[in-house]
Amino acid sequence: MAKGYGQVCPVARALDVVGERWTLLIVRNLLQGPQRFQDLREQLAGIPPKLLSDRLRVMEEQALLTREVYSERPPRATYALSERGRQLGLIVGALATWGRPFVPRRGGPTHAECGHRLELAHYCPHCDARVDAASIRVALAPGAPADTRRRARVGREASGARRRRAAFRR
Amino acid sequence: MAKGYGQVCPVARALDVVGERWTLLIVRNLLQGPQRFQDLREQLAGIPPKLLSDRLRVMEEQALLTREVYSERPPRATYALSERGRQLGLIVGALATWGRPFVPRRGGPTHAECGHRLELAHYCPHCDARVDAASIRVALAPGAPADTRRRARVGREASGARRRRAAFRR
Repeated sequence: MAKGYGQVCPVARALDVVGERWTLLIVRNLLQGPQRFQDLREQLAGIPPKLLSDRLRVMEEQALLTREVYSERPPRATYALSERGRQLGLIVGALATWGRPFVPRRGGPTHAECGHRLELAHYCPHCDARVDAASIRVALAPGAPADTRRRARVGREASGARRRRAAFRR
Repeated sequence: MAKGYGQVCPVARALDVVGERWTLLIVRNLLQGPQRFQDLREQLAGIPPKLLSDRLRVMEEQALLTREVYSERPPRATYALSERGRQLGLIVGALATWGRPFVPRRGGPTHAECGHRLELAHYCPHCDARVDAASIRVALAPGAPADTRRRARVGREASGARRRRAAFRR
């Protein structure tokens, strides 16, 4: 595994797991359905086989995918995302949305069921409104330096207020 | 800049720009507002100063941020996200949402305006429905090797078959 950031922050923790080169492209391809090693190797033009096999092993250890052996000799397996791995579609979709302007046409995430293009939006239940990407904050967590902890605490209090209001509505 | 993936795919292109170690954590911090070099260095405990300055320079070249010099001697500057850089909040928010279970309590993205916790969802305007992360696809683009185009098609067919089977079981 790569060196982690050692930060108690959901962004840093997510990147500890999927931040290494190639990992999210493997996820992108496995979102299409289970793949054999050779399939992945061909699709991910340029990935050294040893690196692909390392990434798949680590992803299996992290429970992001499962490996099913279909031939013992020679050893052959298919790889399929676990439920937790499929939820990485959220991150892959966000990358595809942001990266859309870089590709000539019809890049971006699509809906598996109907093939149409998806929108990705943050939504604030408190304000009952869609939230622009520029208004998204991720509070620094306890364990971060003192100055940043203060910000995180403000975030927690606000969130407690929301819980109370949510309870109130029920 | 890091070695790009050389793929005509919005996910790969986004990762070409922000896939390097630390870049998305710098974005996370700049989403709070403009920061001085020293602020960032303290917040990102563990980042070597040379690496931070390299990342900031590349991000400026990519027009993800702007640098404003506030002292000539000694040279000091503040860094602020550009509009394009702020849109990376989409990716940071997706990472924070996925990474939420890894942190002790109430990590995840919050709304800058009210401090409340955000939800992140893909939405299909065609189906007028929220779409689960597992149903997000990013098609391999024209320009990908021929073999992978074929497989991408196979993937879609396979997924159709799964859908029909699922419908049948109900």
